[in-house]
Amino acid sequence: MKKIAILTSGGDAPGMNAAIRAVVRKAKVEGIEVMGIYYGYEGFMEGNMTLLDVGDVGGIIQRGGTKLYSARCPQFKEAYAQDQGIAKMKEAGVDGLVVIGGDGSYRGAMDLVRKGFPCVGIPATIDNDIPGTQYTIGFDTALNTVIEAVDKIRDTATSHENLFIVEVMGRDAGDLALYASVAAGAGAVIIPEVDFMIEDVIARIKQGEARGKKHNIIIVAEGVMSGTELARQLKENAGITTRVSVLGHMQRGGSPTAQDRVLAGRFGSYAVDVLLAGKSGRAVGIRNHQLVDYDMTEAFKNEHKTDLTLYTLATDLSI
Amino acid sequence: MKKIAILTSGGDAPGMNAAIRAVVRKAKVEGIEVMGIYYGYEGFMEGNMTLLDVGDVGGIIQRGGTKLYSARCPQFKEAYAQDQGIAKMKEAGVDGLVVIGGDGSYRGAMDLVRKGFPCVGIPATIDNDIPGTQYTIGFDTALNTVIEAVDKIRDTATSHENLFIVEVMGRDAGDLALYASVAAGAGAVIIPEVDFMIEDVIARIKQGEARGKKHNIIIVAEGVMSGTELARQLKENAGITTRVSVLGHMQRGGSPTAQDRVLAGRFGSYAVDVLLAGKSGRAVGIRNHQLVDYDMTEAFKNEHKTDLTLYTLATDLSI
Amino acid sequence: MKKIAILTSGGDAPGMNAAIRAVVRKAKVEGIEVMGIYYGYEGFMEGNMTLLDVGDVGGIIQRGGTKLYSARCPQFKEAYAQDQGIAKMKEAGVDGLVVIGGDGSYRGAMDLVRKGFPCVGIPATIDNDIPGTQYTIGFDTALNTVIEAVDKIRDTATSHENLFIVEVMGRDAGDLALYASVAAGAGAVIIPEVDFMIEDVIARIKQGEARGKKHNIIIVAEGVMSGTELARQLKENAGITTRVSVLGHMQRGGSPTAQDRVLAGRFGSYAVDVLLAGKSGRAVGIRNHQLVDYDMTEAFKNEHKTDLTLYTLATDLSI
Amino acid sequence: MKKIAILTSGGDAPGMNAAIRAVVRKAKVEGIEVMGIYYGYEGFMEGNMTLLDVGDVGGIIQRGGTKLYSARCPQFKEAYAQDQGIAKMKEAGVDGLVVIGGDGSYRGAMDLVRKGFPCVGIPATIDNDIPGTQYTIGFDTALNTVIEAVDKIRDTATSHENLFIVEVMGRDAGDLALYASVAAGAGAVIIPEVDFMIEDVIARIKQGEARGKKHNIIIVAEGVMSGTELARQLKENAGITTRVSVLGHMQRGGSPTAQDRVLAGRFGSYAVDVLLAGKSGRAVGIRNHQLVDYDMTEAFKNEHKTDLTLYTLATDLSI
Repeated sequence: MKKIAILTSGGDAPGMNAAIRAVVRKAKVEGIEVMGIYYGYEGFMEGNMTLLDVGDVGGIIQRGGTKLYSARCPQFKEAYAQDQGIAKMKEAGVDGLVVIGGDGSYRGAMDLVRKGFPCVGIPATIDNDIPGTQYTIGFDTALNTVIEAVDKIRDTATSHENLFIVEVMGRDAGDLALYASVAAGAGAVIIPEVDFMIEDVIARIKQGEARGKKHNIIIVAEGVMSGTELARQLKENAGITTRVSVLGHMQRGGSPTAQDRVLAGRFGSYAVDVLLAGKSGRAVGIRNHQLVDYDMTEAFKNEHKTDLTLYTLATDLSI
Repeated sequence: MKKIAILTSGGDAPGMNAAIRAVVRKAKVEGIEVMGIYYGYEGFMEGNMTLLDVGDVGGIIQRGGTKLYSARCPQFKEAYAQDQGIAKMKEAGVDGLVVIGGDGSYRGAMDLVRKGFPCVGIPATIDNDIPGTQYTIGFDTALNTVIEAVDKIRDTATSHENLFIVEVMGRDAGDLALYASVAAGAGAVIIPEVDFMIEDVIARIKQGEARGKKHNIIIVAEGVMSGTELARQLKENAGITTRVSVLGHMQRGGSPTAQDRVLAGRFGSYAVDVLLAGKSGRAVGIRNHQLVDYDMTEAFKNEHKTDLTLYTLATDLSI
Repeated sequence: MKKIAILTSGGDAPGMNAAIRAVVRKAKVEGIEVMGIYYGYEGFMEGNMTLLDVGDVGGIIQRGGTKLYSARCPQFKEAYAQDQGIAKMKEAGVDGLVVIGGDGSYRGAMDLVRKGFPCVGIPATIDNDIPGTQYTIGFDTALNTVIEAVDKIRDTATSHENLFIVEVMGRDAGDLALYASVAAGAGAVIIPEVDFMIEDVIARIKQGEARGKKHNIIIVAEGVMSGTELARQLKENAGITTRVSVLGHMQRGGSPTAQDRVLAGRFGSYAVDVLLAGKSGRAVGIRNHQLVDYDMTEAFKNEHKTDLTLYTLATDLSI
Repeated sequence: MKKIAILTSGGDAPGMNAAIRAVVRKAKVEGIEVMGIYYGYEGFMEGNMTLLDVGDVGGIIQRGGTKLYSARCPQFKEAYAQDQGIAKMKEAGVDGLVVIGGDGSYRGAMDLVRKGFPCVGIPATIDNDIPGTQYTIGFDTALNTVIEAVDKIRDTATSHENLFIVEVMGRDAGDLALYASVAAGAGAVIIPEVDFMIEDVIARIKQGEARGKKHNIIIVAEGVMSGTELARQLKENAGITTRVSVLGHMQRGGSPTAQDRVLAGRFGSYAVDVLLAGKSGRAVGIRNHQLVDYDMTEAFKNEHKTDLTLYTLATDLSI
């Protein structure tokens, strides 16, 4: 292997740039070249790429987003698009691909793997919901963005003795909401992984009030319901007035935290190792602080498991 | 004057605590005592207050919100409530009041002034919309909170080449939206002070696209319309797809910036000077870097004027 | 056990307050009371403490430092001081103690354990150097403080094409320097755990220059040598001019990151479990994401092991 | 005028990039082109520059440092170097120059002006010490960097009840130290503009202790003496033990605050206006919120005046 390519795909996550940097630099150490593909699979299909040398990835370790851009590419599900992309790569002397993204991005990579083009995946999503790895690039940054926002909201909640609902990202996975509720000291948290009864939330609020708590913050993952809908239910069922804050897209951006940068560095370096070892169709991950690689299909066939001991902890600490 | 009281009223703003601290410390220098009233005019009415010594305001200069809490008190518009409050104050030996808040808070103070109870107002609101002063406590912090959020959103906008609408606070005043659009490099800004035609916004977006701009951010003050409504209009009138982010309540919180802390220090100290000079019914303010005091009624009778040269600047720079 | 006490000891670390909060709230769930001891072992000796109810630990989860203060207490090494403290505790009905601090703090606790007074330790230090746990409270926050400072310094280094030396904390342990070098993309890192030759550092700098790198940042752990000394050696041995920045005490402060708050929540809750299970002389820790408790003496008899795979990674990525 | 050039010179300051962006965009509005000169006057002399179009200054408004780099160029004091630079500019069709930097940078510009080459200066330095303008680009950001660091140090100071000395930048001007002392609530501040007696500082410390203050922070501008020297004097004269923190180079970096970005936008836009109006040898500035332009030589012939009412305020509030 003399030359590999790299692309970012799916929703962007802080730390993607740090991972790109790590791949380029580790490849340099190993004596191979890296082509940076623009716009994800769309760029792969069209051979839209450029050589990335060490200097080209200088000064990006601290930047959110992705220098290589990301894009949806529905037609990449079709064989012709994959074939065309592989042809473009071979033409340019590219023998392997590193894909940085979520499980959707892995599906595209597996299509290439089945056609004999070596691919390795690096998990990056703020949702932390990729099976096979305990952490994904971007989760820690998004989590800190959430708690900084909640800290600000708490200032107002405390001053006015209000009840706030904060809606955070997480369509299928409650990790962000759950960790944030522990870290921000929320009064209650609602996540997809735990069945939820409005009566329980009301009981927690009333209990807090009974012991003198005059302000409160409830965190809800968007996958369960919107903050507005939760507000409606609390009003309708118990006459409780709340204010709603939807954190929105800023959760995807920002300079990556130290943990995300270190993780990106480790993943990027290891992905090059895996490719050079002649493996293909592997995703890199971290389990108990050890780098691992595993069959990429596991990432979209299995289900991500949230650490529910944190749910118990959240409940205990929000007494 | 041997003893004065202080309260915070209306929406909270970062720097209120720094202002409380300044009032207490300046009063100490002048040899007078300060009572801290809890929950705004409600606490005034009920005499709910405590002595604040220098040590009691230690470690709060950097904190958002207000240590004295804030609350609405609709009944304070009635004479009996005002009389009751004045009686409570006199009973406790309190001869004057510093009110930290917005123009609504000044109305309550003027009712007391008319009944012969000396009051001085300190302008604090993130909206920067109090006539008679060029800056209010909390504006600079809110502005920085907004641009930090927009910086994060830009990471995602850039990576995915999307068009984002960011809705910021500002019911009647566009200062926050306007300054933020210059500081964050927005592609367009919509504020209450400038008539707005959806066609112009569309033209700006198209023009940006024409010159190769692939992502864009539009900032809208909530007082004009919601971000969602703007998105609907862009879709309906020109088929433009956008994503909407409503920054919400976090704009009111957070550790105050240096400017807000310095302003709070100056205002707090000067408010004590004004009270001790035997003046009443005065609001403190800053004009061309000079501390001023002026008739409080000016603050709610006049209209706040936004610096519209910034609107021209925003338009020029978002070419 | 009906009543326990808690103290913070040694150097403060961000997240100590979150741990205090967790202990108080978990204890409440378990139906026991918590006394907060002021000034570490000095307060223990003198019985200087107060009852902490759930409301007393509200609004502290996000604050750096320690609400209970910390202090050195050299006389606590003597038996009389320990006996006096135990007597004070028994008098107040306190049956057990949670100590939040570093390995030095554990030594004091073990003296009490040997006299039959149940103690449990929670590891908190920005140095991450307590044997038996992979992470300590405060490390993640300090690490992010360091990389934010280095990001700022890089702005200047890049603009002026300078070589900077950044000295970070770490007397015996290089974790902070090592993780920071990976996360901040430093050109070289010098830590106590890896033998260091000035020639190698010079070679790395020259090599970077040779490939066009015009600015560079070297991170050195204070335990190896001061930044100033390193600058002197580079000047003397190779005529290389550098600028030195010593990050200093700000590394100990700041609002804790999400990871430190979650860790503090888990440790605090688990420490109560351990005490209530009738165990004593145990330190809580985290290994491979699992909470563990182990003999406190291990923490000061063994040596902390830094993850040196990161050193290799740092070297590869700083090519 | 069809084409102008821009350079950054001297110490970098946050907001320089925002100013470059503003110049390029305002020029575009006016229908003229902008060449970006690399490495300050060195690049001017060598004609090292590139065309900057609107897209080239996208995504830099939020970045510290300067995209155009800065460098010392001692030989630019000599006529040949100036002549050579002017020749290079004329060759490239460049008719005017915008210089972003400090008063040292203005001297170089004045040499060009005297030779008939039109120049306009934009004040950018974290020291805020350029006569003729009340604010310079970078000051507000540096000030916030300082108070965030002091906030962190205060966490530790409070927990351990220590006395800290914080040394901040400011060789000739005390603005940064002075504003920071008000904003951070320091116990004393030492600046070049106010004569300083060690006895007074000692008295303030003792007085604080007497009223129960257990921790304290003293801010000293580097221009008066180093933090270490101050520590030595306090030890020697009064046996007072302190800890010293030197904030150092990170004060120059970081993402610019809203105020600095707005100021940069206004200055950049106005500088283009001034050049196009056919003026030369003018510096832009802001006085009482109004943009002004004035003879550049005033900036280095006059002396910057610090607002000493803040010194009185600092003294009052640190009682």
